[in-house]
Amino acid sequence: MEAVLSIGTHVIPHPRKKVETGGEDAFFVGGDGGGVFAIADGVSGWAEKNVNPALFSRELMANSSTFIKDEEVSQDPQILLMKAHAATSSIGSATVIVAMLEKTGTLKIASVGDCGLKVIRKGQVMFSTCPQEHYFDCPYQLSSEAIGQTSQDALVCTVNLMEGDMIVSGSDGFFDNIFDQEILGVINESLGTDEAAKALAELARKHSVDVTFDSPYSMEARSRGFDV
Amino acid sequence: MEAVLSIGTHVIPHPRKKVETGGEDAFFVGGDGGGVFAIADGVSGWAEKNVNPALFSRELMANSSTFIKDEEVSQDPQILLMKAHAATSSIGSATVIVAMLEKTGTLKIASVGDCGLKVIRKGQVMFSTCPQEHYFDCPYQLSSEAIGQTSQDALVCTVNLMEGDMIVSGSDGFFDNIFDQEILGVINESLGTDEAAKALAELARKHSVDVTFDSPYSMEARSRGFDV
Repeated sequence: MEAVLSIGTHVIPHPRKKVETGGEDAFFVGGDGGGVFAIADGVSGWAEKNVNPALFSRELMANSSTFIKDEEVSQDPQILLMKAHAATSSIGSATVIVAMLEKTGTLKIASVGDCGLKVIRKGQVMFSTCPQEHYFDCPYQLSSEAIGQTSQDALVCTVNLMEGDMIVSGSDGFFDNIFDQEILGVINESLGTDEAAKALAELARKHSVDVTFDSPYSMEARSRGFDV
Repeated sequence: MEAVLSIGTHVIPHPRKKVETGGEDAFFVGGDGGGVFAIADGVSGWAEKNVNPALFSRELMANSSTFIKDEEVSQDPQILLMKAHAATSSIGSATVIVAMLEKTGTLKIASVGDCGLKVIRKGQVMFSTCPQEHYFDCPYQLSSEAIGQTSQDALVCTVNLMEGDMIVSGSDGFFDNIFDQEILGVINESLGTDEAAKALAELARKHSVDVTFDSPYSMEARSRGFDV
Protein backbone atom coordinates (compact mmCIF):
# COMPACT_ATOMS: atom_id res chain seq x y z
CA MET A 1 0.00 0.00 0.00
CA GLU A 2 1.32 3.43 -0.90
CA ALA A 3 0.86 6.38 1.43
CA VAL A 4 -0.71 9.50 -0.05
CA LEU A 5 -1.82 12.84 1.39
CA SER A 6 -5.32 14.21 0.91
CA ILE A 7 -4.91 17.97 1.34
CA GLY A 8 -7.37 20.74 2.12
CA THR A 9 -6.26 24.37 2.42
CA HIS A 10 -7.69 27.65 3.62
CA VAL A 11 -6.09 31.10 3.88
CA ILE A 12 -7.54 34.07 5.74
CA PRO A 13 -5.36 37.19 5.37
CA HIS A 14 -5.12 39.62 8.28
CA PRO A 15 -7.95 42.19 7.73
CA ARG A 16 -5.55 45.12 7.39
CA LYS A 17 -2.94 43.22 5.38
CA LYS A 18 -5.64 41.95 3.02
CA VAL A 19 -6.23 45.50 1.73
CA GLU A 20 -2.57 46.49 1.58
CA THR A 21 -0.87 43.39 0.20
CA GLY A 22 -3.47 40.70 -0.32
CA GLY A 23 -2.00 38.90 2.70
CA GLU A 24 1.57 37.99 3.50
CA ASP A 25 1.25 34.21 3.69
CA ALA A 26 1.83 31.89 0.75
CA PHE A 27 1.75 28.14 0.30
CA PHE A 28 2.02 25.43 -2.28
CA VAL A 29 0.69 21.92 -2.57
CA GLY A 30 2.07 19.24 -4.87
CA GLY A 31 1.50 15.59 -5.66
CA ASP A 32 5.12 14.46 -5.84
CA GLY A 33 5.91 11.27 -3.90
CA GLY A 34 3.01 10.76 -1.50
CA GLY A 35 2.29 14.51 -1.53
CA VAL A 36 4.11 17.68 -0.55
CA PHE A 37 3.11 21.02 0.93
CA ALA A 38 4.83 24.15 2.16
CA ILE A 39 3.80 27.31 3.98
CA ALA A 40 5.67 30.62 4.12
CA ASP A 41 4.69 33.53 6.36
CA GLY A 42 6.13 36.86 5.22
CA VAL A 43 7.57 38.90 8.09
CA SER A 44 5.44 42.04 8.57
CA GLY A 45 8.28 44.28 9.75
CA TRP A 46 9.33 44.85 6.13
CA ALA A 47 6.27 47.07 5.57
CA GLU A 48 7.98 49.73 7.72
CA LYS A 49 10.75 49.84 5.10
CA ASN A 50 8.19 50.21 2.31
CA VAL A 51 8.76 46.60 1.23
CA ASN A 52 5.68 44.48 0.54
CA PRO A 53 6.19 41.51 2.93
CA ALA A 54 4.13 39.28 0.64
CA LEU A 55 6.65 39.28 -2.22
CA PHE A 56 9.38 37.23 -0.52
CA SER A 57 7.03 34.54 0.81
CA ARG A 58 5.25 34.21 -2.55
CA GLU A 59 8.47 33.94 -4.53
CA LEU A 60 9.90 31.44 -2.02
CA MET A 61 6.83 29.24 -2.46
CA ALA A 62 6.86 29.61 -6.26
CA ASN A 63 10.51 28.60 -6.29
CA SER A 64 9.81 25.68 -3.96
CA SER A 65 7.13 24.37 -6.29
CA THR A 66 9.61 24.58 -9.18
CA PHE A 67 12.56 22.94 -7.41
CA ILE A 68 10.47 20.06 -6.10
CA LYS A 69 11.04 18.49 -9.52
CA ASP A 70 14.82 18.99 -9.25
CA GLU A 71 16.79 15.76 -9.10
CA GLU A 72 19.17 17.06 -6.46
CA VAL A 73 16.26 17.79 -4.10
CA SER A 74 15.40 14.08 -4.16
CA GLN A 75 12.76 14.19 -1.43
CA ASP A 76 14.92 16.22 0.97
CA PRO A 77 12.98 19.21 2.34
CA GLN A 78 16.14 20.92 3.62
CA ILE A 79 17.74 20.87 0.15
CA LEU A 80 14.47 22.16 -1.29
CA LEU A 81 14.60 25.12 1.10
CA MET A 82 18.24 25.77 0.23
CA LYS A 83 17.55 25.88 -3.51
CA ALA A 84 14.30 27.84 -3.25
CA HIS A 85 15.90 30.38 -0.90
CA ALA A 86 18.95 30.83 -3.16
CA ALA A 87 16.68 31.45 -6.14
CA THR A 88 14.50 34.04 -4.37
CA SER A 89 15.46 37.57 -5.36
CA SER A 90 12.70 39.59 -3.66
CA ILE A 91 13.61 41.72 -0.64
CA GLY A 92 12.07 40.45 2.59
CA SER A 93 12.00 37.43 4.86
CA ALA A 94 9.68 34.63 5.85
CA THR A 95 9.20 31.77 8.26
CA VAL A 96 8.66 28.54 6.35
CA ILE A 97 7.77 24.90 6.76
CA VAL A 98 8.00 22.14 4.15
CA ALA A 99 6.59 18.62 4.50
CA MET A 100 7.07 15.76 2.04
CA LEU A 101 5.44 12.38 2.31
CA GLU A 102 7.32 9.37 0.98
CA LYS A 103 5.16 6.59 -0.39
CA THR A 104 6.43 4.39 2.47
CA GLY A 105 4.61 6.68 4.94
CA THR A 106 7.59 8.69 6.20
CA LEU A 107 6.79 12.40 6.48
CA LYS A 108 9.93 14.54 6.09
CA ILE A 109 9.79 18.01 7.60
CA ALA A 110 12.05 21.07 7.48
CA SER A 111 11.04 24.18 9.41
CA VAL A 112 12.61 27.59 9.90
CA GLY A 113 10.78 29.75 12.44
CA ASP A 114 7.31 29.48 13.90
CA CYS A 115 5.12 27.83 11.30
CA GLY A 116 3.88 24.60 12.83
CA LEU A 117 2.86 21.06 12.02
CA LYS A 118 0.98 18.58 14.18
CA VAL A 119 0.12 14.94 13.52
CA ILE A 120 -3.15 13.69 14.97
CA ARG A 121 -3.67 9.97 15.51
CA LYS A 122 -6.58 8.29 17.27
CA GLY A 123 -7.94 11.60 18.57
CA GLN A 124 -4.73 12.95 20.07
CA VAL A 125 -1.75 15.05 19.03
CA MET A 126 1.03 12.50 18.55
CA PHE A 127 3.66 14.77 17.05
CA SER A 128 4.27 18.49 16.99
CA THR A 129 7.07 20.72 15.74
CA CYS A 130 8.47 23.38 18.05
CA PRO A 131 8.86 27.03 17.02
CA GLN A 132 12.36 28.49 16.74
CA GLU A 133 12.92 32.09 17.71
CA HIS A 134 15.64 34.58 18.62
CA TYR A 135 13.40 36.05 21.33
CA PHE A 136 9.67 36.34 21.93
CA ASP A 137 7.84 37.27 18.70
CA CYS A 138 11.07 37.26 16.64
CA PRO A 139 11.17 33.91 14.83
CA TYR A 140 14.01 32.38 12.83
CA GLN A 141 13.46 33.39 9.20
CA LEU A 142 14.83 32.88 5.72
CA SER A 143 15.76 36.34 4.50
CA SER A 144 17.08 38.34 1.58
CA GLU A 145 19.64 39.72 4.03
CA ALA A 146 22.76 37.97 5.34
CA ILE A 147 21.61 38.53 8.91
CA GLY A 148 18.79 36.00 8.47
CA GLN A 149 18.82 32.22 8.83
CA THR A 150 19.51 29.66 6.10
CA SER A 151 18.26 26.15 5.40
CA GLN A 152 21.17 24.98 7.59
CA ASP A 153 19.34 26.44 10.60
CA ALA A 154 16.19 24.46 9.86
CA LEU A 155 14.76 21.93 12.26
CA VAL A 156 14.80 18.74 10.19
CA CYS A 157 12.80 15.76 11.38
CA THR A 158 10.67 12.88 10.15
CA VAL A 159 7.67 11.06 11.53
CA ASN A 160 6.37 7.67 10.41
CA LEU A 161 2.70 8.14 9.55
CA MET A 162 0.00 5.50 9.88
CA GLU A 163 -3.16 5.11 7.82
CA GLY A 164 -5.77 7.61 8.99
CA ASP A 165 -3.29 10.06 10.53
CA MET A 166 -4.24 13.69 10.12
CA ILE A 167 -1.79 16.58 9.70
CA VAL A 168 -2.59 20.16 10.68
CA SER A 169 -0.07 22.75 9.54
CA GLY A 170 -0.15 26.54 9.51
CA SER A 171 1.58 29.80 10.28
CA ASP A 172 1.90 31.21 13.80
CA GLY A 173 -1.23 33.27 13.10
CA PHE A 174 -3.11 29.97 13.19
CA PHE A 175 -1.48 28.14 16.12
CA ASP A 176 -1.34 31.34 18.23
CA ASN A 177 -5.13 31.44 18.15
CA ILE A 178 -6.34 27.89 18.61
CA PHE A 179 -5.76 25.25 21.30
CA ASP A 180 -4.94 21.62 20.52
CA GLN A 181 -8.21 20.49 22.12
CA GLU A 182 -10.11 22.81 19.76
CA ILE A 183 -8.23 21.44 16.75
CA LEU A 184 -9.16 17.90 17.79
CA GLY A 185 -12.80 18.93 18.24
CA VAL A 186 -13.07 20.60 14.83
CA ILE A 187 -11.40 17.67 13.04
CA ASN A 188 -13.69 15.23 14.80
CA GLU A 189 -16.74 17.09 13.46
CA SER A 190 -15.47 17.73 9.92
CA LEU A 191 -16.39 15.59 6.95
CA GLY A 192 -13.28 16.13 4.87
CA THR A 193 -9.98 17.94 4.59
CA ASP A 194 -11.40 21.02 2.83
CA GLU A 195 -14.16 21.42 5.37
CA ALA A 196 -11.73 20.86 8.26
CA ALA A 197 -9.18 23.36 6.88
CA LYS A 198 -11.87 26.02 6.51
CA ALA A 199 -13.43 25.37 9.93
CA LEU A 200 -10.02 25.41 11.66
CA ALA A 201 -8.95 28.66 9.98
CA GLU A 202 -12.33 30.26 10.73
CA LEU A 203 -12.14 29.34 14.43
CA ALA A 204 -8.61 30.75 14.73
CA ARG A 205 -9.73 33.93 12.92
CA LYS A 206 -12.74 34.28 15.24
CA HIS A 207 -10.48 33.96 18.29
CA SER A 208 -7.98 36.47 16.85
CA VAL A 209 -10.58 39.25 16.83
CA ASP A 210 -12.15 38.27 20.17
CA VAL A 211 -10.55 40.47 22.83
CA THR A 212 -12.07 38.30 25.57
CA PHE A 213 -10.43 35.08 24.25
CA ASP A 214 -7.39 34.01 26.25
CA SER A 215 -5.39 32.56 23.36
CA PRO A 216 -2.33 30.31 23.35
CA TYR A 217 -0.39 33.43 22.33
CA SER A 218 -1.67 35.48 25.30
CA MET A 219 -0.90 32.67 27.71
CA GLU A 220 2.60 32.23 26.31
CA ALA A 221 3.23 35.98 26.44
CA ARG A 222 2.13 36.16 30.09
CA SER A 223 4.33 33.19 31.00
CA ARG A 224 7.27 35.16 29.55
CA GLY A 225 6.42 38.15 31.72
CA PHE A 226 4.60 40.31 29.16
CA ASP A 227 1.51 42.20 30.29
CA VAL A 228 -1.12 40.88 27.85
CA MET B 1 33.01 14.28 11.72
CA GLU B 2 31.09 11.55 13.51
CA ALA B 3 28.24 12.35 15.87
CA VAL B 4 28.42 10.84 19.35
CA LEU B 5 26.30 11.16 22.49
CA SER B 6 27.78 12.10 25.85
CA ILE B 7 25.30 10.71 28.36
CA GLY B 8 24.64 11.47 32.03
CA THR B 9 21.92 9.65 33.99
CA HIS B 10 20.19 9.99 37.33
CA VAL B 11 17.35 7.97 38.84
CA ILE B 12 15.34 8.93 41.92
CA PRO B 13 12.77 6.27 42.85
CA HIS B 14 9.44 7.36 44.35
CA PRO B 15 9.98 7.42 48.15
CA ARG B 16 7.35 4.73 48.78
CA LYS B 17 8.30 2.62 45.76
CA LYS B 18 11.96 2.75 46.74
CA VAL B 19 11.24 0.69 49.86
CA GLU B 20 8.86 -1.75 48.22
CA THR B 21 10.47 -2.45 44.85
CA GLY B 22 13.64 -0.40 44.57
CA GLY B 23 11.84 1.81 42.06
CA GLU B 24 9.85 0.89 38.97
CA ASP B 25 11.89 2.72 36.35
CA ALA B 26 14.73 1.14 34.41
CA PHE B 27 17.05 2.33 31.68
CA PHE B 28 20.02 1.34 29.63
CA VAL B 29 22.77 3.24 27.89
CA GLY B 30 24.97 1.86 25.12
CA GLY B 31 27.69 3.02 22.80
CA ASP B 32 26.47 1.43 19.59
CA GLY B 33 26.45 3.72 16.56
CA GLY B 34 26.71 7.26 17.92
CA GLY B 35 25.13 6.13 21.19
CA VAL B 36 21.83 4.64 22.32
CA PHE B 37 19.66 4.94 25.39
CA ALA B 38 16.26 3.71 26.54
CA ILE B 39 13.96 4.35 29.49
CA ALA B 40 11.11 2.15 30.72
CA ASP B 41 8.64 3.18 33.41
CA GLY B 42 6.86 0.23 35.05
CA VAL B 43 3.11 0.82 35.44
CA SER B 44 2.31 1.05 39.17
CA GLY B 45 -1.17 -0.46 38.90
CA TRP B 46 0.34 -3.96 38.87
CA ALA B 47 1.18 -3.66 42.57
CA GLU B 48 -2.55 -4.00 43.29
CA LYS B 49 -2.36 -7.48 41.74
CA ASN B 50 0.66 -8.35 43.87
CA VAL B 51 2.96 -8.03 40.85
CA ASN B 52 6.19 -6.08 41.33
CA PRO B 53 5.90 -3.36 38.63
CA ALA B 54 9.69 -3.12 38.44
CA LEU B 55 10.22 -6.58 36.97
CA PHE B 56 8.71 -5.94 33.53
CA SER B 57 10.51 -2.62 32.98
CA ARG B 58 13.84 -4.06 34.12
CA GLU B 59 13.57 -7.15 31.93
CA LEU B 60 12.46 -5.01 28.96
CA MET B 61 15.57 -2.86 29.34
CA ALA B 62 17.85 -5.86 29.86
CA ASN B 63 16.45 -7.42 26.68
CA SER B 64 16.83 -4.13 24.81
CA SER B 65 20.49 -3.93 25.74
CA THR B 66 20.95 -7.49 24.44
CA PHE B 67 19.06 -7.05 21.16
CA ILE B 68 20.83 -3.81 20.30
CA LYS B 69 23.61 -6.05 18.94
CA ASP B 70 21.11 -8.03 16.83
CA GLU B 71 21.65 -7.69 13.08
CA GLU B 72 17.94 -7.48 12.33
CA VAL B 73 17.58 -4.48 14.64
CA SER B 74 20.02 -2.58 12.40
CA GLN B 75 19.61 0.80 14.08
CA ASP B 76 15.79 0.67 14.02
CA PRO B 77 14.36 1.51 17.47
CA GLN B 78 10.91 0.12 16.60
CA ILE B 79 12.38 -3.30 15.71
CA LEU B 80 14.42 -3.18 18.93
CA LEU B 81 11.21 -2.63 20.91
CA MET B 82 9.48 -5.47 19.07
CA LYS B 83 12.25 -7.94 19.83
CA ALA B 84 12.79 -6.82 23.42
CA HIS B 85 9.05 -6.91 24.13
CA ALA B 86 8.66 -10.40 22.60
CA ALA B 87 11.52 -11.69 24.74
CA THR B 88 10.17 -10.26 28.01
CA SER B 89 8.44 -12.92 30.10
CA SER B 90 7.74 -10.98 33.31
CA ILE B 91 4.15 -10.05 34.12
CA GLY B 92 3.52 -6.31 33.99
CA SER B 93 3.65 -3.37 31.62
CA ALA B 94 5.72 -0.26 30.99
CA THR B 95 5.90 2.93 29.01
CA VAL B 96 9.12 3.08 27.04
CA ILE B 97 11.27 5.31 24.88
CA VAL B 98 14.31 4.33 22.82
CA ALA B 99 16.69 6.75 21.09
CA MET B 100 19.56 5.78 18.79
CA LEU B 101 22.04 8.20 17.31
CA GLU B 102 23.48 7.42 13.89
CA LYS B 103 27.01 8.63 13.31
CA THR B 104 25.61 11.00 10.67
CA GLY B 105 23.75 12.89 13.43
CA THR B 106 20.26 11.47 12.89
CA LEU B 107 18.56 10.60 16.17
CA LYS B 108 16.00 7.82 15.74
CA ILE B 109 13.27 7.62 18.34
CA ALA B 110 10.50 5.13 19.16
CA SER B 111 8.14 5.87 22.04
CA VAL B 112 5.18 4.04 23.53
CA GLY B 113 3.35 6.04 26.20
CA ASP B 114 4.40 9.07 28.17
CA CYS B 115 8.15 8.93 28.55
CA GLY B 116 9.51 12.03 26.84
CA LEU B 117 12.47 13.38 24.91
CA LYS B 118 13.37 16.98 24.16
CA VAL B 119 16.18 18.39 22.03
CA ILE B 120 17.64 21.69 23.17
CA ARG B 121 19.55 23.84 20.68
CA LYS B 122 20.81 27.36 21.24
CA GLY B 123 18.95 27.75 24.51
CA GLN B 124 15.53 26.65 23.33
CA VAL B 125 13.50 23.47 23.00
CA MET B 126 13.67 22.65 19.29
CA PHE B 127 12.05 19.24 19.35
CA SER B 128 9.80 17.39 21.76
CA THR B 129 7.94 14.08 21.67
CA CYS B 130 4.25 14.03 22.60
CA PRO B 131 2.81 11.57 25.14
CA GLN B 132 0.33 8.95 23.95
CA GLU B 133 -2.51 7.93 26.21
CA HIS B 134 -5.87 6.18 26.22
CA TYR B 135 -7.24 8.80 28.62
CA PHE B 136 -5.78 11.11 31.26
CA ASP B 137 -3.16 9.29 33.36
CA CYS B 138 -3.53 6.05 31.37
CA PRO B 139 -0.62 5.97 28.91
CA TYR B 140 -0.01 3.58 26.02
CA GLN B 141 2.14 0.74 27.37
CA LEU B 142 3.95 -2.38 26.29
CA SER B 143 2.44 -5.17 28.35
CA SER B 144 2.61 -8.86 29.17
CA GLU B 145 -1.12 -8.93 28.37
CA ALA B 146 -2.74 -8.90 24.92
CA ILE B 147 -4.76 -5.81 25.86
CA GLY B 148 -1.62 -3.65 25.85
CA GLN B 149 0.11 -1.89 22.97
CA THR B 150 2.87 -3.26 20.78
CA SER B 151 5.86 -1.73 19.01
CA GLN B 152 3.47 -1.15 16.08
CA ASP B 153 1.70 1.49 18.20
CA ALA B 154 4.93 3.39 18.83
CA LEU B 155 5.45 6.94 17.73
CA VAL B 156 8.47 6.65 15.43
CA CYS B 157 10.33 9.77 14.44
CA THR B 158 13.81 11.14 13.75
CA VAL B 159 15.47 14.47 14.28
CA ASN B 160 18.68 15.67 12.67
CA LEU B 161 20.98 16.77 15.48
CA MET B 162 23.61 19.49 15.25
CA GLU B 163 26.86 19.76 17.18
CA GLY B 164 26.18 21.01 20.69
CA ASP B 165 22.54 19.88 20.81
CA MET B 166 21.41 18.63 24.19
CA ILE B 167 18.86 15.87 24.76
CA VAL B 168 16.75 15.60 27.90
CA SER B 169 14.77 12.38 28.26
CA GLY B 170 12.83 10.91 31.15
CA SER B 171 9.69 9.25 32.42
CA ASP B 172 6.45 11.15 33.02
CA GLY B 173 7.50 11.47 36.67
CA PHE B 174 10.20 13.84 35.44
CA PHE B 175 8.36 15.91 32.82
CA ASP B 176 5.22 16.14 35.00
CA ASN B 177 7.24 18.03 37.58
CA ILE B 178 9.47 20.42 35.67
CA PHE B 179 8.78 23.19 33.16
CA ASP B 180 10.76 23.64 29.94
CA GLN B 181 12.06 27.00 31.14
CA GLU B 182 13.41 25.32 34.28
CA ILE B 183 15.11 22.61 32.20
CA LEU B 184 16.79 25.29 30.09
CA GLY B 185 17.91 27.14 33.22
CA VAL B 186 19.42 24.06 34.87
CA ILE B 187 21.24 23.01 31.70
CA ASN B 188 22.61 26.50 31.26
CA GLU B 189 24.13 26.36 34.74
CA SER B 190 25.46 22.79 34.60
CA LEU B 191 29.04 21.90 33.78
CA GLY B 192 28.45 18.46 32.28
CA THR B 193 25.89 15.80 31.47
CA ASP B 194 26.19 14.01 34.84
CA GLU B 195 25.80 17.20 36.80
CA ALA B 196 22.89 18.31 34.59
CA ALA B 197 21.10 14.95 34.88
CA LYS B 198 21.39 15.01 38.66
CA ALA B 199 20.32 18.66 38.99
CA LEU B 200 17.33 18.15 36.67
CA ALA B 201 16.14 15.02 38.51
CA GLU B 202 16.62 16.74 41.89
CA LEU B 203 14.58 19.77 40.83
CA ALA B 204 11.74 17.57 39.55
CA ARG B 205 11.85 15.55 42.79
CA LYS B 206 11.74 18.72 44.88
CA HIS B 207 8.70 19.95 42.96
CA SER B 208 6.98 16.55 43.28
CA VAL B 209 6.92 16.81 47.08
CA ASP B 210 6.11 20.53 47.19
CA VAL B 211 2.32 20.81 47.60
CA THR B 212 2.48 24.53 46.79
CA PHE B 213 4.18 23.96 43.40
CA ASP B 214 1.78 24.28 40.46
CA SER B 215 3.37 21.62 38.24
CA PRO B 216 2.92 20.92 34.53
CA TYR B 217 0.91 17.88 35.68
CA SER B 218 -1.44 19.97 37.86
CA MET B 219 -1.96 22.50 35.08
CA GLU B 220 -2.70 19.76 32.53
CA ALA B 221 -5.10 18.04 34.94
CA ARG B 222 -7.00 21.29 35.55
CA SER B 223 -7.21 21.99 31.82
CA ARG B 224 -8.88 18.56 31.45
CA GLY B 225 -11.44 19.44 34.11
CA PHE B 226 -9.89 17.65 37.09
CA ASP B 227 -9.99 19.39 40.46
CA VAL B 228 -6.27 19.45 41.37
